[in-house]
Amino acid sequence: MTNINDNYLKLRGAYLFPEIARRVTAFLEREPAAASRIVRCGIGDVTEPLVPAVLDAMHAALDEMGRRETFRGYGPPLGYDFLREAIVAGDFDGLDIAPDEVFISDGSKTDCGAILDVLGTGNRTGITDPVYPVYVDSNVMAGHTGEARDDGSYDGLTYLPCTADNGFVPAIPSAPLDLVYLCYPNNPTGGMITREQLRAWVDYALEHDAIILYDVAYKDFVREADAPRSIYEIDGARRCAMEFHSFSKNGGFTGVRCGYTVCPRELAGRTRGGEEVPLHGLWARRWSTKSNSVGYVVQRGAEALYSEAGRAQTRNVIENYLENARLLREGCRSIGLTVYGGVDAPYVWVTCPDGVDSWGMFDRMLEEANVVVTPGVGFGRCGEGYFRISAFNTRENVEEVVRRMKAMVNQPA
Amino acid sequence: MTNINDNYLKLRGAYLFPEIARRVTAFLEREPAAASRIVRCGIGDVTEPLVPAVLDAMHAALDEMGRRETFRGYGPPLGYDFLREAIVAGDFDGLDIAPDEVFISDGSKTDCGAILDVLGTGNRTGITDPVYPVYVDSNVMAGHTGEARDDGSYDGLTYLPCTADNGFVPAIPSAPLDLVYLCYPNNPTGGMITREQLRAWVDYALEHDAIILYDVAYKDFVREADAPRSIYEIDGARRCAMEFHSFSKNGGFTGVRCGYTVCPRELAGRTRGGEEVPLHGLWARRWSTKSNSVGYVVQRGAEALYSEAGRAQTRNVIENYLENARLLREGCRSIGLTVYGGVDAPYVWVTCPDGVDSWGMFDRMLEEANVVVTPGVGFGRCGEGYFRISAFNTRENVEEVVRRMKAMVNQPA
Repeated sequence: MTNINDNYLKLRGAYLFPEIARRVTAFLEREPAAASRIVRCGIGDVTEPLVPAVLDAMHAALDEMGRRETFRGYGPPLGYDFLREAIVAGDFDGLDIAPDEVFISDGSKTDCGAILDVLGTGNRTGITDPVYPVYVDSNVMAGHTGEARDDGSYDGLTYLPCTADNGFVPAIPSAPLDLVYLCYPNNPTGGMITREQLRAWVDYALEHDAIILYDVAYKDFVREADAPRSIYEIDGARRCAMEFHSFSKNGGFTGVRCGYTVCPRELAGRTRGGEEVPLHGLWARRWSTKSNSVGYVVQRGAEALYSEAGRAQTRNVIENYLENARLLREGCRSIGLTVYGGVDAPYVWVTCPDGVDSWGMFDRMLEEANVVVTPGVGFGRCGEGYFRISAFNTRENVEEVVRRMKAMVNQPA
Repeated sequence: MTNINDNYLKLRGAYLFPEIARRVTAFLEREPAAASRIVRCGIGDVTEPLVPAVLDAMHAALDEMGRRETFRGYGPPLGYDFLREAIVAGDFDGLDIAPDEVFISDGSKTDCGAILDVLGTGNRTGITDPVYPVYVDSNVMAGHTGEARDDGSYDGLTYLPCTADNGFVPAIPSAPLDLVYLCYPNNPTGGMITREQLRAWVDYALEHDAIILYDVAYKDFVREADAPRSIYEIDGARRCAMEFHSFSKNGGFTGVRCGYTVCPRELAGRTRGGEEVPLHGLWARRWSTKSNSVGYVVQRGAEALYSEAGRAQTRNVIENYLENARLLREGCRSIGLTVYGGVDAPYVWVTCPDGVDSWGMFDRMLEEANVVVTPGVGFGRCGEGYFRISAFNTRENVEEVVRRMKAMVNQPA
């Protein structure tokens, strides 16, 4: 009989968002009348449509696909030059990144899972807690962990606590790590890292020959002038960091599917025999063997995000989401809740009232306010006692959420 | 320092098609005047534009993405029901396949690589020779092989020779295998399997508790009335086979990116402890954790392939490619070459003239006829002495290829 990958059986429960969907469905079966009242602030999915610049570019590209003279079949395995060049000009102006260090993919979730294809076993891996679950689950699937513990964490990973005390930026560990996942603006806490804090992590990685996998899916939400938009703003990062980018949140591409990674040519790992091997060639081989890149129409849509019109239009959409975040922050504060994040990120990270845990607060918000949030503990042990509210919503819905939360306080359960 | 996946270093040379591209570029640097004369019949990329039914559906879906009321963000992780249901109705009419056994992906190449994520180590793996290189390379990357041998094959894989003697359908092995890759209509030989031959493979798999990974990317090119379009036409296949489908060749989606797999609920592997585990749940978990599925616009385009208009329009395109294949077959025969395939497939598999090997013939075709073909040995040891001509081209180009091949014979090098 065919052997399966036993590591999958270590995975604890369902992936977080399907579990949320299950609870919402169960609630609506008990109370079908609530269906029309539900406001979803759980999964970080955008609500605003694609901007006109993107729509125009995709319609035009689709027209090209309808004429033999301009039809495009298989594209270059790592992405079209027009997009790789637009990315370098738009996101790395003044930084030392070349177009052939940019790898186009169908999204950051794919990249976060795929990176382990080219890395080996035995890496001491640091993961922030709370964290985007894909980092953890992809390590479990690859056999880089032991079994799950009762609290949902896994043997074999080094968890880096992110709490209110450290401003949701983990302390530099005393022990050496080989691989560290960092994400700023942070999902789920909405926190941001300072340039000095990021420099300390780069210095740590250089000292220990570690690699930082740096996720900047929310970089276009950064408003603090001096905060880093890319790890490559820090000297030495080319030798120790890959960077993961997404068009999901800035361009509203959650239903379009496109993102990219940056893998500098200097970045290297080593073989079991101790030989240094650049990751760039391995990553290129991974993509050219296991994928035929991303559709032409989608890549033209992503390119349009970097046009003058595309930038102006998406800036408006992002400002709107950030104003939502401000309203949610203020609303939560006005009813006495302690709130973090939501300044440089579309997520507001809220302390649960005394005596209520994350899932308890999830259930209360669902049942009493008919609002879907995300329980903090779903992102890791250190998320217990928090819940996340996503600002990806219409203004009307955000104002309604604030009204309902105020009403909840006035009529406690 | 961070450990890499050493298995990547076992990979022999570049992936086939980049190597072909390299030789074409080198030739054009020596003879730039030939650039306008080059006809590409190498990589199996379609040349005809997307059909109107697909274009209309994609434009309409794109319009939906531009309005808040109809905008779609993250889709269901395994694909939209509208597409899964259209597939079942269109491709499995009368067969026992349910929509939730259909998994939408961005293409068959991705699926062929990803399947090893959920399978374990130690499977005795059979791969036809010659073969689509992705099956082999993804096994190398996953550490399921030893080192490459001088002839480009790898220790640890069981090669199943496909030759003119066995009609390019491998003999049932005497030894047990746990995993077998089969592809019919076949890439690269253009050959087809009979219902009886496929039944023998299903019986073998059931007898040995093996899994068949059955690739039907070219199924819509089958013209023989009784030939199987799906392995699920054979009794028992639900217990021993996954099936890999692509819209690349029937729908012209090489630059759009969509395909699907079928994983029946009965299909199971086992843990190291001997416990049976259905693959369906593992495959679902793989996709929901490591991907956010395929864009909405693309899935609407794929759905349109199953509409009445979409079917009629793609049938015309396929008939046109098959007529190209017939012209190439006849042309090669008329100059004394022995030809296989090209009846139920868009590939013509041609025996090299005496004393010329595959790459030698590739170079001759490139240099003397300015036609890019694919050297048979690029698909495996048993492909030596053959070359593949793709019928994916315009009629004008196909007729030109035939003319130039006739001229080559009249003016031998």
